[in-house]
Amino acid sequence: MLMFETIKEAQRRICSFVHRTPVITSRSFNERVGREVFFKCENLQRAGAFKIRGATNKILALSEDERGRGVVAFSSGNHAQAVALAARDANTRAVIAMPTDAPQTKVIATRGYGAEVRFYDRQRDDRELFARNIAESESLTLVPPYDDYLVMAGQGTCALELLEDVPDLDSIVTPCGGGGLFAGASTAAKAINERIRLFAVEAEGADDTLQSLRRGERVCIPPPATIADGMRNQAPGALTFPVLQRNAEDVLLISDDEIIETMRFILFRMKLVVEPTGATAAAAVLFGKLPGDVRRIGVVLSGGNVDPSALAAIASS
Amino acid sequence: MLMFETIKEAQRRICSFVHRTPVITSRSFNERVGREVFFKCENLQRAGAFKIRGATNKILALSEDERGRGVVAFSSGNHAQAVALAARDANTRAVIAMPTDAPQTKVIATRGYGAEVRFYDRQRDDRELFARNIAESESLTLVPPYDDYLVMAGQGTCALELLEDVPDLDSIVTPCGGGGLFAGASTAAKAINERIRLFAVEAEGADDTLQSLRRGERVCIPPPATIADGMRNQAPGALTFPVLQRNAEDVLLISDDEIIETMRFILFRMKLVVEPTGATAAAAVLFGKLPGDVRRIGVVLSGGNVDPSALAAIASS
Repeated sequence: MLMFETIKEAQRRICSFVHRTPVITSRSFNERVGREVFFKCENLQRAGAFKIRGATNKILALSEDERGRGVVAFSSGNHAQAVALAARDANTRAVIAMPTDAPQTKVIATRGYGAEVRFYDRQRDDRELFARNIAESESLTLVPPYDDYLVMAGQGTCALELLEDVPDLDSIVTPCGGGGLFAGASTAAKAINERIRLFAVEAEGADDTLQSLRRGERVCIPPPATIADGMRNQAPGALTFPVLQRNAEDVLLISDDEIIETMRFILFRMKLVVEPTGATAAAAVLFGKLPGDVRRIGVVLSGGNVDPSALAAIASS
Repeated sequence: MLMFETIKEAQRRICSFVHRTPVITSRSFNERVGREVFFKCENLQRAGAFKIRGATNKILALSEDERGRGVVAFSSGNHAQAVALAARDANTRAVIAMPTDAPQTKVIATRGYGAEVRFYDRQRDDRELFARNIAESESLTLVPPYDDYLVMAGQGTCALELLEDVPDLDSIVTPCGGGGLFAGASTAAKAINERIRLFAVEAEGADDTLQSLRRGERVCIPPPATIADGMRNQAPGALTFPVLQRNAEDVLLISDDEIIETMRFILFRMKLVVEPTGATAAAAVLFGKLPGDVRRIGVVLSGGNVDPSALAAIASS
């Protein structure tokens, strides 16, 4: 079970390796939604997303022996760069498994942090198995993207910081891919204030968590088509799902168009770059998906890594 | 003369009307320049730029009688929206003089804050005279864009905050258009730490301040061609110039290409939208224009208002 003490321990462990990101308010956003919203800017985090929190916590908690051998991760997204950077900080070897068709910019960025990239075939290989084989044959520790208590605890530190800065929130909204961020953040928040209300956000068509909660068990959906590329997982995690069941008041769904409009609002009114997944929690507030009696809302802007061409398209849309 | 006490008074006066903007660091920026840089994010300020500080200070300092009549300003840029918003906050009428060819988005934004827009002909009219005529005939108070001690004092509050957050800076770098921001910020900084070093930044071709400092008197240059639209003034102010003479160790010049590359770095690595003028101080650091013994640098990102099409062009350049 994910314990509050593990999250507090994570905060002590990682605090000199990650940014304490600012909490930002926007009167124009507040005026538009008629509520008070506090944005936790994980898009301004190192490597551009909250993922560095969990990766750093996991890697710093390794035994000296494990750290001497190194780590492996599979990801074509923010987790790849987070593990690469956290490993470099810890002076540890990192191998990242990426699909052969991963964007060249992400391969370069990951290598730029000193990691070794190994390619798997998206059609032929099971990426998790591919990474586990590397882990086994080279005695590396796998750093899972979400389904690991140390990773979840690391992600949860962003809610600790948010509630230190704004103690009287009545609710927190986070994006929900595999559920690591929500699991960590909700566990931290409930321990601090048991009456706080927690909402997870998924993209339409990527509603594996919502379906799973309704069914009462983990559901695996077909590969989702959404611009929120951090939400393309097909099922919640085995360890994150029970936390979601316990802590999520609701799962809110938003469309690609709502994501894009929210990204534009955040870009031009709030002057922040967020990636599609990173905009989903804000989109849920902007498009009125929350209950009416929620008034002081913490929103996690979870990441800001977006390709130049994609950003140009959104800016001119 | 601009007094430190006037700036401290401004801080007390405006603090509940403006954002205390965050100070952000970027390890990738620091690694690239080999120094420690602290970014004061006035692009995250209300109305998207530091200008709201000076406008608010000026308007809140009006007598009850003056405030009952209203204010007027001339600007096609950030000062227009700042005065409009500050006037709305103070429940005061605002008239903004804009050129007939002002971008429609700026006209709409200014009206959106409740101000009345009056158009002048850029070829035929002197904009300052145009605004002074309105002020006289309608008994309004002119809110100058920079050449006013209350406006300068307001702008200076951003350096007060920066030095509260990071007391041991050895230098501060600010953009320099008319000189209001530099005058306020440098006066505040020198009062707190007389050994702090202050640098103003101008765009190549918009070097009216540098030329004036070399000549020892205010020089008027032809209308500058630069993408830094906040630097298209042709001479430093009568009141700002003596402060520049006293406090500026140097004026650093940067090119449009350097501005664009800096905007891209800030956009994609730091996830912040800055406008061309807002990126100039960071550009001076990124392109090595400062002396080598300057190590802990405060940089003001002065604004973030950029048109969607311009941002799209920069993102895809």
